[in-house]
Amino acid sequence: MNQKNPKTIHGIIPPMLTPLLSDWTLDHEGTRRLVDHMIDGGVHGIFILGTTGESTSLSYQTRRELIEETTSHVNGRVPILVGITDTSIEESLNLVSLAHDFGADAVVAAPPFYFQLGQEELYEFYWDLADRSKLPIFLYNMPSMTKISMSIDTAERLSKHQNIIGLKDSSANTVYFQKLRYTIKKDDFALFVGPEEIMAETVLMGGNGGVNGGANLFPKLYVRMYEAALAHDFDTIKVLQRQILEISSLLYTVGRFDSSYLKGLKGAASLLGICGNYLAPPLKPFLEKEMEQIKNNLELINKKLNKILS
Amino acid sequence: MNQKNPKTIHGIIPPMLTPLLSDWTLDHEGTRRLVDHMIDGGVHGIFILGTTGESTSLSYQTRRELIEETTSHVNGRVPILVGITDTSIEESLNLVSLAHDFGADAVVAAPPFYFQLGQEELYEFYWDLADRSKLPIFLYNMPSMTKISMSIDTAERLSKHQNIIGLKDSSANTVYFQKLRYTIKKDDFALFVGPEEIMAETVLMGGNGGVNGGANLFPKLYVRMYEAALAHDFDTIKVLQRQILEISSLLYTVGRFDSSYLKGLKGAASLLGICGNYLAPPLKPFLEKEMEQIKNNLELINKKLNKILS
Amino acid sequence: MNQKNPKTIHGIIPPMLTPLLSDWTLDHEGTRRLVDHMIDGGVHGIFILGTTGESTSLSYQTRRELIEETTSHVNGRVPILVGITDTSIEESLNLVSLAHDFGADAVVAAPPFYFQLGQEELYEFYWDLADRSKLPIFLYNMPSMTKISMSIDTAERLSKHQNIIGLKDSSANTVYFQKLRYTIKKDDFALFVGPEEIMAETVLMGGNGGVNGGANLFPKLYVRMYEAALAHDFDTIKVLQRQILEISSLLYTVGRFDSSYLKGLKGAASLLGICGNYLAPPLKPFLEKEMEQIKNNLELINKKLNKILS
Amino acid sequence: MNQKNPKTIHGIIPPMLTPLLSDWTLDHEGTRRLVDHMIDGGVHGIFILGTTGESTSLSYQTRRELIEETTSHVNGRVPILVGITDTSIEESLNLVSLAHDFGADAVVAAPPFYFQLGQEELYEFYWDLADRSKLPIFLYNMPSMTKISMSIDTAERLSKHQNIIGLKDSSANTVYFQKLRYTIKKDDFALFVGPEEIMAETVLMGGNGGVNGGANLFPKLYVRMYEAALAHDFDTIKVLQRQILEISSLLYTVGRFDSSYLKGLKGAASLLGICGNYLAPPLKPFLEKEMEQIKNNLELINKKLNKILS
Repeated sequence: MNQKNPKTIHGIIPPMLTPLLSDWTLDHEGTRRLVDHMIDGGVHGIFILGTTGESTSLSYQTRRELIEETTSHVNGRVPILVGITDTSIEESLNLVSLAHDFGADAVVAAPPFYFQLGQEELYEFYWDLADRSKLPIFLYNMPSMTKISMSIDTAERLSKHQNIIGLKDSSANTVYFQKLRYTIKKDDFALFVGPEEIMAETVLMGGNGGVNGGANLFPKLYVRMYEAALAHDFDTIKVLQRQILEISSLLYTVGRFDSSYLKGLKGAASLLGICGNYLAPPLKPFLEKEMEQIKNNLELINKKLNKILS
Repeated sequence: MNQKNPKTIHGIIPPMLTPLLSDWTLDHEGTRRLVDHMIDGGVHGIFILGTTGESTSLSYQTRRELIEETTSHVNGRVPILVGITDTSIEESLNLVSLAHDFGADAVVAAPPFYFQLGQEELYEFYWDLADRSKLPIFLYNMPSMTKISMSIDTAERLSKHQNIIGLKDSSANTVYFQKLRYTIKKDDFALFVGPEEIMAETVLMGGNGGVNGGANLFPKLYVRMYEAALAHDFDTIKVLQRQILEISSLLYTVGRFDSSYLKGLKGAASLLGICGNYLAPPLKPFLEKEMEQIKNNLELINKKLNKILS
Repeated sequence: MNQKNPKTIHGIIPPMLTPLLSDWTLDHEGTRRLVDHMIDGGVHGIFILGTTGESTSLSYQTRRELIEETTSHVNGRVPILVGITDTSIEESLNLVSLAHDFGADAVVAAPPFYFQLGQEELYEFYWDLADRSKLPIFLYNMPSMTKISMSIDTAERLSKHQNIIGLKDSSANTVYFQKLRYTIKKDDFALFVGPEEIMAETVLMGGNGGVNGGANLFPKLYVRMYEAALAHDFDTIKVLQRQILEISSLLYTVGRFDSSYLKGLKGAASLLGICGNYLAPPLKPFLEKEMEQIKNNLELINKKLNKILS
Repeated sequence: MNQKNPKTIHGIIPPMLTPLLSDWTLDHEGTRRLVDHMIDGGVHGIFILGTTGESTSLSYQTRRELIEETTSHVNGRVPILVGITDTSIEESLNLVSLAHDFGADAVVAAPPFYFQLGQEELYEFYWDLADRSKLPIFLYNMPSMTKISMSIDTAERLSKHQNIIGLKDSSANTVYFQKLRYTIKKDDFALFVGPEEIMAETVLMGGNGGVNGGANLFPKLYVRMYEAALAHDFDTIKVLQRQILEISSLLYTVGRFDSSYLKGLKGAASLLGICGNYLAPPLKPFLEKEMEQIKNNLELINKKLNKILS
């Protein structure tokens, strides 16, 4: 892949966890370890400062350090996408500048998420942002967090801006995804799906890849699934889909939290020796009881994965 | 298909529109015409008194007549599923009795939809209903109307009742659908998807068919797509998916109504000469201006369909 | 009050619990006991078949019996309002006919609650209903159950129909209530509030009374509060408000159910010897553990009430 | 009022609009003009960087300048509250430090608003924030923006922290407000209401004042209403309430925007010569057509106000 042409970005782009120390400052060493773990697993790019990266919980200082550390350590091995989601367009543009200056390839922006917006306001916000951004932009539909779902019509109109090159959809609504695929006429507009449980089917139906949290832990699994979907290899899809759903079931639904996914992901990353089990406020990491469960489940998963991926 | 074994129900089961006269009583002739149109198109079953059938808007007298007319006219050619969704379990059971006595094959029940329920209450409601029902039951997840999404856990627990044989999901959330497929261990538990825009992908990933509104109008298209998905015939899937999305775009999103889908469907059915353009209150049919649009769009669609399906 | 002029309805109109037997048929004796209990307590009217009356959970046969029993036993002592909320306008009108023929004074209709409606559809539905109703109608805003909040504009337009004489608001949003009071110009249009916790303040600010569930149990308390609010007697308001909030806290929030209010209310009614502790499906009555709590709390309340109301 | 004791804060505390220049930097002169306008009108305090102040849309640089300008220009004439709502606790604490160093009296924090939180997470977030804050804190319940409503129980538990001194509720749900008043036992815990349409009734029922946007424009009106409510002067309340609702109707509901309130408020402020008609992205100011309406409506209001307040 040519890093200089972000329009060719495709495949598995993990939304990177942000390794933190106990005081919620950046764990530089953990960050480098996680980057290498994912690139060794074959991922096609890395997306930092997304929802999984707890972007909005981090201080701007920490966000800056993460951009610097990641771009420096990746060093051109894969494209880097940087989340710039913010409620203030000025702060979003500050993040674009940092991403640009440190050599990232593109940025990703969910809608500003405090005020309740209409579609026209959303459209104008993004168009203005795209006009002023030094890097190409991926739209990011994330209604459960932002309270607004970008309409098909809004996305289609925004796709006409030369600086808007794709969309990541985390709505889990594949009617929406299919309508995007059908409606947006721009040839190289990239559509990524968030939830890994439906990555295979969206790729089968014309999606360009997955921004899948589980690829922080098991990058090879999701890369293999992406390739199987591209190849219409249903024997492999069937086996891997079972595994992906088992991960979802065993790691992302422990306890009764809206953020069980993130707690489970970071807890598992800590058990894999990648980084510490720290989540920035307002989220809290799992405590001992849930971690015991995560540990047992992780062992189960690893056994099966060793067979499947060997 | 053996009508006597509802556990083998699969494929395209259109949620039948209810043909009405101008006073919202049943259009018996239109009903027979619609039934024949769909069976001629190869559908694998018929589902009456669902959301698309405006069940909740109809008087009980009309519901009774519809069950009678449909079962009588279908006369065993395909299985018949009858919607019994109601807020009162007694009225639901009255509908089960009618369905049973007129010879329908199974019933379909969305959650009672007035009170806000918890999952435990939902579970107990369905278990009790299944105990008392003379016909096998399909669960029906329809959160946009009923305010509650049946949890994966609740569905899994209910699947253990011998009288609960499948689930229709109209949430459009395929993460949910994939989790159901993975979690429910009962071998012959049938999973159907509502929205036709994602029928192909759910069948590719292990779903058992579609309860797709568009099959009222173009039954062959959806039957063909179902077969293509079963056969992993991606050349056909690609062509038909484009067509299915065009129907969705041209017929279901005219005007700015939450019920544009239903207005468009019935308007198109009237233009095809199947039944009159009447919707029971509180919904209203499209007026002249929107119908003009529907008419033009329908012509476009028919031209393309003639090529594709010939 | 002149029963023959429903436009003068005001004050405390309890939304009557429906006394049921263990098979969810009507408890006629309990119904008569409850009616007498409330009238003895001074209530200004009775509203049957509302949310608190579990209307939508009851069979039509039971609804019919309840209308007959209540009208017959009340026998003109106070005005009777009958809930006709349904998803089918025909069934609503059937209930109007029954209410009319048995001599009720007015009917109450929440929006049809299955389909997602727009304001224009809502407006047309009610206007048509009002045209065809033999009894005057109260609108009923209940967005938590019906998924739609009647807009100020819709309510104002509907208030112009001569057969629409008031509105009961259960949204708990008093900005909405104040805007209704300001916007609707019809002189004798009656505005009632559902939640008893805010009955005093709405009456202070121009409301016409409360449809308060607690008045099933303690009718005198709410009647006294209504009178104190009318009289701007803040010493009394302060004491009674404390008591009303204590009832809300001790009886309506036991357990973690969306329907704790209704479970608590019926549980307490059974402890007071008014009727059995039966709720129709899909709701379930409190079990022993919660009933123990209700019992203890009820004793506390009764002690205080004896002092306050003596 | 003694600025040194923020626990005595009460009355009308306008959520100050942020006067902006056309490039969305701070309009220092407009800020001073607005401050003087409100203090001349008798307000009991000023709340900057709230929702009405577009806090989340402003760069941190602009927020800093606003804190500095306001504290400097107010110069102890009334207490100043500073909004510190953020998704990152570090950034919230940075704002606390600025507020403290420039001499503000207290801070106001809505829940972090990106992730979906549980009540326990919310509780721990606030408790931690309160431990680390150099200024006393007002809780801020704003569910329409933050996606979470602080439960009565959470608020009650937080009220026990000595650094948490009050709560501003913008839910418009006065059942919630009454339950807070009843449940929180801390004597001097201050309860403020956001929507001006219900300020009178909450004060009548024991509230401590209003954080009312309209007081940016007409401070005397809201101060007078607050005093009338304290004095139980219903003749005055009736007249002023009509006026307050007319302002709400004529200025806050022009157009069909979720943010019509804010657009109308800033448009009217610009017509009164207080500041320019600039809203920071993602919001947009009213255009000519709507401003024409605002202008006409403002004239109507001013005529009536001149009579009422003279």
